[in-house]
Amino acid sequence: MLQSELFTKTLRQAPSGEEAKNAQLLIRAGYIYKVMAGVYAYLPLGLRVLGKIKTIVREEMDALGGQELIMTSLQRKELWEKTDRWDDKQVDIWFKSELKNGTEVGLAWSHEEQITEMMKNYIQSFRDLPIYVYQFQTKLRNELRAKSGILRGREFLMKDMYSYSTNTEEHDAFYDKAVKAYLKIFERVGLGENTFLTFASGGAFTQFSHEFQTMSDTGEDTIYLARDRKVAINKEVLTDEVISQLGLKKTDLEEVKATEVGNIFNFGATKSEQLGLFFTDDKGVKKPVILGSYGIGISRLMGVLVEQFSDSKGIIWPTSVSPFDLHLINIGSNKDIPDKLYKTLQDENFSVLYDQREASAGTKFADSDLIGIPMRILVSDKTLKAESVEIKARTSDKTQLIKIKDLIKTIRQK
Amino acid sequence: MLQSELFTKTLRQAPSGEEAKNAQLLIRAGYIYKVMAGVYAYLPLGLRVLGKIKTIVREEMDALGGQELIMTSLQRKELWEKTDRWDDKQVDIWFKSELKNGTEVGLAWSHEEQITEMMKNYIQSFRDLPIYVYQFQTKLRNELRAKSGILRGREFLMKDMYSYSTNTEEHDAFYDKAVKAYLKIFERVGLGENTFLTFASGGAFTQFSHEFQTMSDTGEDTIYLARDRKVAINKEVLTDEVISQLGLKKTDLEEVKATEVGNIFNFGATKSEQLGLFFTDDKGVKKPVILGSYGIGISRLMGVLVEQFSDSKGIIWPTSVSPFDLHLINIGSNKDIPDKLYKTLQDENFSVLYDQREASAGTKFADSDLIGIPMRILVSDKTLKAESVEIKARTSDKTQLIKIKDLIKTIRQK
Repeated sequence: MLQSELFTKTLRQAPSGEEAKNAQLLIRAGYIYKVMAGVYAYLPLGLRVLGKIKTIVREEMDALGGQELIMTSLQRKELWEKTDRWDDKQVDIWFKSELKNGTEVGLAWSHEEQITEMMKNYIQSFRDLPIYVYQFQTKLRNELRAKSGILRGREFLMKDMYSYSTNTEEHDAFYDKAVKAYLKIFERVGLGENTFLTFASGGAFTQFSHEFQTMSDTGEDTIYLARDRKVAINKEVLTDEVISQLGLKKTDLEEVKATEVGNIFNFGATKSEQLGLFFTDDKGVKKPVILGSYGIGISRLMGVLVEQFSDSKGIIWPTSVSPFDLHLINIGSNKDIPDKLYKTLQDENFSVLYDQREASAGTKFADSDLIGIPMRILVSDKTLKAESVEIKARTSDKTQLIKIKDLIKTIRQK
Repeated sequence: MLQSELFTKTLRQAPSGEEAKNAQLLIRAGYIYKVMAGVYAYLPLGLRVLGKIKTIVREEMDALGGQELIMTSLQRKELWEKTDRWDDKQVDIWFKSELKNGTEVGLAWSHEEQITEMMKNYIQSFRDLPIYVYQFQTKLRNELRAKSGILRGREFLMKDMYSYSTNTEEHDAFYDKAVKAYLKIFERVGLGENTFLTFASGGAFTQFSHEFQTMSDTGEDTIYLARDRKVAINKEVLTDEVISQLGLKKTDLEEVKATEVGNIFNFGATKSEQLGLFFTDDKGVKKPVILGSYGIGISRLMGVLVEQFSDSKGIIWPTSVSPFDLHLINIGSNKDIPDKLYKTLQDENFSVLYDQREASAGTKFADSDLIGIPMRILVSDKTLKAESVEIKARTSDKTQLIKIKDLIKTIRQK
């Protein structure tokens, strides 16, 4: 894409009152637009990053046998009353509204109830199970305070998966597969090294739920890390008993700040019993379906990546989620050679942001650092004299002069 | 995809109270799920059709130079007060809610205000214009009655594009290009023959807005068609004066029922003046930006297609939007040959729904007709004796026996 055609421009500063580093950088670089606290629009660059993250998550959900669907934002009150989650005293993050005839409706902050109700159409026998479904859905949550940029939004994009199983063994086997898929996702987006499966508080059915926590100085949670085992315990459930139950030693645990990037939860038979989702097993016995729920905040993940991968100059995207593979910048007087290079790189299946604007080299470099594409290719009168371009990784200060004829090969090796 | 793995099953009947043919068929076939009147979830088959439609629309929007983004559902009251569209007396389809601190918020039924406000960050000079942006966004509209299935929803998917131009000439030129792009979209989804550019009531700025109306017995609108000219006049603006102004003859006009599938609208400078979006022209003069707005109801379009293309047995998808290219059905005892064929067809880049379930031939045929994939490939003991399969178009009762070795070639020619 030509940078001159991008309608967004980099901004000198984020709006006043925007405290979070992730939002400040993303706003200044033109990825997002702040509508109000906790409510952000995603501009062309931001939508590209969300798309990259969604593709990775979708691939892993499909590999688990997940079927994608999309439920609705508008929710029926009666359904949530059956599971005792309608009342604001039980759930304090509802946005509610009403139909013209006065019927109260809710705006979805989660979808267990709605999908479970729907499954009554499709689940009768053990032969219909297991079923795994997922969606990318905009959730609305009426947070009292929303000061963390896109880390905790009032409106945000979430991937939620739901598993419906005949019994706990079948559920547990899938749950373990889902843990592995989640770890793979965090690995693929560049957070693998710093993300840990974390034991957190469970519910009526299970002692623990599981969170995926990424170490972060700005994190809201405190976790106790058994680094060599790649697991952690959330402070909320940390007791001597839990430590020994998990086969860990207190002295091996390291207290760190962390940000939750995913969670998985076992609802057991509760929701199915409340909503009436039963199946007939192979002996003709009627049983409730076992429900699991698996969430990743997609837009939150984008924010975590910016918190983790940025410096004083701007964002530093991991390759897998960068809006473009390459940032091609021309600061020389020759237009034909960089124009041709732009075409060649695209023909070789690289996505390229091409800065051919009439602007100073300094402006172009600053914009490039702010936007954070992992590799920069610079064309100048000086590099062209040597029939070369200069390449530079966003993570490094080192530049390298590469003959144009060797460029593709060199980039492929990076 | 294996049909046995699809969690949806065809249903004998739609929920009671569902009057619209589009929703009845789509629910029974497993494309959508009804949450409440005018609120439908999209299940795996339905999401595939939406995806096909979105791809076609996206390609045409990109070809117009459109940049994709995604705005928010939550809307600030102040913004809509500035354009006098907040009050329920002015706009009677708002869903409203409030933040924890009591601040009123709206749920978006359109996005002119929000995008125009945002553009103040990015538009200062004539050099920044024109700008074309679009999104696929879930809109909420608090319709008093919602009885038309997915044709008129309280929650629905819309593509809305917005153009920002320096003057009316530039605006008009783009507007004309957008008309052509819209006609191309309706052509590509299979509605070309029956869809007409229709003159409808304008606003403060223009005498007319333009609708795209598809002839339909169940349509809500009445239009007067000049068939050979491929244009129509909405009943709401039909006068002798308008007829002659458009160079048409009253005697050539044909009264037909129609459904609106798209509309385009010129806001002129109104919104920019109300919200303060100005630019400096090449002579240094400050001027308001000219706004156009261009909508297509994506989920509505899916409903229109079902209304247009269905029979007593079920849906008949146009090839371009069908959830799968081919419906492969095995009713014979041999599993290896159809399994291999399934793989071969996929290797040849056809998307295939493969019915290898343990079910009667009658059930499989009925399901296939209901789901409505344009081409069915049947494998039976009888066809295999002739080293053949039987192909049948959903639109026809004729079957054709084709040697397996000639199948790919034959399908490609269809």
